[in-house]
Amino acid sequence: MTATGEIPLANWARTVKKSALQQMLMEASRPGVISFALGLPDVNLFPTDAYLNAVEHVLANDPVGMQYGPPFQPLKEQIVDLMRKRGVKCKSEQVFLTAGAQQGMNLLVRLLLDPGGPVVVEEMAYTGFQQVIEPFQPKILTVSTDLKTGMEVEEVELLLRKGIRPSFIYAITDGHNPMAVSMSVEKRVRLVELASRFGTPIIEDDAYGFFCYEEESCPPMRAFDDKTVLYVGTFSKILCPGLRVGWIIVPEALTHYLSVVKEATDINTGNFAQRAISAYIDSGHLPGHIDFLRDEYRLRRDAMINALCEHFPVPSRWETPSSGVFVWVEMPDDINGVELLRVCMSEWQVAFIPGSAFCSLGRGRGSNCIRLNFSHSTPEIIKEGMIRLARALTALENGR
Amino acid sequence: MTATGEIPLANWARTVKKSALQQMLMEASRPGVISFALGLPDVNLFPTDAYLNAVEHVLANDPVGMQYGPPFQPLKEQIVDLMRKRGVKCKSEQVFLTAGAQQGMNLLVRLLLDPGGPVVVEEMAYTGFQQVIEPFQPKILTVSTDLKTGMEVEEVELLLRKGIRPSFIYAITDGHNPMAVSMSVEKRVRLVELASRFGTPIIEDDAYGFFCYEEESCPPMRAFDDKTVLYVGTFSKILCPGLRVGWIIVPEALTHYLSVVKEATDINTGNFAQRAISAYIDSGHLPGHIDFLRDEYRLRRDAMINALCEHFPVPSRWETPSSGVFVWVEMPDDINGVELLRVCMSEWQVAFIPGSAFCSLGRGRGSNCIRLNFSHSTPEIIKEGMIRLARALTALENGR
Repeated sequence: MTATGEIPLANWARTVKKSALQQMLMEASRPGVISFALGLPDVNLFPTDAYLNAVEHVLANDPVGMQYGPPFQPLKEQIVDLMRKRGVKCKSEQVFLTAGAQQGMNLLVRLLLDPGGPVVVEEMAYTGFQQVIEPFQPKILTVSTDLKTGMEVEEVELLLRKGIRPSFIYAITDGHNPMAVSMSVEKRVRLVELASRFGTPIIEDDAYGFFCYEEESCPPMRAFDDKTVLYVGTFSKILCPGLRVGWIIVPEALTHYLSVVKEATDINTGNFAQRAISAYIDSGHLPGHIDFLRDEYRLRRDAMINALCEHFPVPSRWETPSSGVFVWVEMPDDINGVELLRVCMSEWQVAFIPGSAFCSLGRGRGSNCIRLNFSHSTPEIIKEGMIRLARALTALENGR
Repeated sequence: MTATGEIPLANWARTVKKSALQQMLMEASRPGVISFALGLPDVNLFPTDAYLNAVEHVLANDPVGMQYGPPFQPLKEQIVDLMRKRGVKCKSEQVFLTAGAQQGMNLLVRLLLDPGGPVVVEEMAYTGFQQVIEPFQPKILTVSTDLKTGMEVEEVELLLRKGIRPSFIYAITDGHNPMAVSMSVEKRVRLVELASRFGTPIIEDDAYGFFCYEEESCPPMRAFDDKTVLYVGTFSKILCPGLRVGWIIVPEALTHYLSVVKEATDINTGNFAQRAISAYIDSGHLPGHIDFLRDEYRLRRDAMINALCEHFPVPSRWETPSSGVFVWVEMPDDINGVELLRVCMSEWQVAFIPGSAFCSLGRGRGSNCIRLNFSHSTPEIIKEGMIRLARALTALENGR
């Protein structure tokens, strides 16, 4: 008898463990826990009234939204408009609708990566992306990340000059997950130039890019190149994740292949959600809602940074993120993030994700780092959570 | 330069063509075309008012539905109740929520099939399932299907006795797609017994199983075995497809593995759609709605069968389906379904899917067959469409 009873599973399944993210999702959702763990929006900020109006509109005028259906053309055009606000020019024919950014990355990776093929990712990378590539057992080539300027593009160049031809380079240009940095303009330009010269596509994950807290925001790499940069966007962060709608922007010639993979995957993206989001955008609320979220998240970011400055008991390094929803904290080498989490969860009811969970080679790098999310909680709760975290850290130090 | 411009694709993508299903979806959705092509519900039968109430309820009481979230436990319990109506006993811990049946099949296949592994499917099989297994380049072992009693279980037995151990057997027990047959009770029992004895899982695709037009319906194979039968269900046909919610029922030990694949695929199934469906079911409408659809589809089935009897100009064979939404018509050998479709589309504005499109070995079997759907159109339109089809067939015959 196997662990699954009667049923023999595929080989990969024999080594499967629960992901760090899933563990956290369960632990951190216990009542009373202040969670800085996941990249979640705050439920209280969802535009429920405006969304209800949108749903009413669709049900009254557009019952075909409950049917199967091809991608909703008006939504694609609205995404073209939305992308203009990010400084990206594209055509609706280049917009491919997905069930969120995670699926967008899956579809792109299916399209680009052969089993065992080489890919370039940063040493610290979004765990969800690691899960996407894992089934392909790729040759993972890592590059490091500077906390002020982002991915070390020179290391990418070195790989390419050596003759390595990765299936793609995975990049989070703004509001890096987990390292919270946004790439410098120079690096964006340089990476795009390299990718184009060597014919290596970039998968640009822009899940958090609409939240830039500076006066002037820099456009994502897709703004500099429409041939080699494959852009991944989502409504999960700027509207809500519960509808599962996102998009990718690709050269038009790729959409045919993507539609084949997409149909095999889940037939089509929720038609109803597409039309309801489209109706919501039609009502004109989205730009104001994004501004509202950005202002609110800026306050939350500041609350977290202030609390770090005020309460953090050990010498640590962090940068104030100009985009996104995370702060990345590097603590002294002798502090272990996993151990700290254990103390925090068992005694202080506060959660985060230890840096080592993001290590794309699965080794113990980032073990003295933690990722803190600030979008999910109010400034008051952030302050309270940071005080708990500081106490946990002090307790851990004293217990030695 | 490649066809995709600058970007080198994975090997599989070089051979990709548009699927028959996608071609049809586009052609058949032209205004004026009467479509018997796809397994679509009728937009006019969607319970839009009751669904709006459900959405209002969720938005007013349960805004966390717009957030990411774990599978919605109340919906799982409602599915347990629903399955009881199909004669299936299960626990909510065995219910795994998916973005529709297509995703359910994908998740199961990911879990069971190694690249190049052997699978048992019928000679004529749902194209969507073929798309699911294609990336694995499996060794496809086919068995034939009797039009009155379903899959030839003796052929399965022969394979198993030869020592072949397929990763799974794919079966549509009721309302077969495309062949419209429901398996005899004896065959269900026998297949389950074989699968259990040889430790071979069955993927039981029950997309259409709730539509049984007989007084007494026979339960699916999952009712006879809870260890080796992996059941795939969906709200797409009994409620609407635009929400993308379905479920699979598996031994509890498998759900852990499934949750890992699911998270990597698209994080989670639309939380909002789950809660809205749950609220809709809570309001007590679903059983009556299924009965309503069943009665309506029975009328449509009868309209199609009557039209076949009355108008079909060539000697053909069909059975009156006891379940599902399709009629399978075998015409004389010299009539080619693809050629007939071309005539139908270009001159008669009526669509269907040629039998050869379903051939699981990609060879020209079923070339004299067609699959006709009767759920999408009213009895009047079915009659009109069948008259057009008969005329096209006559024209094709006379043109020779």
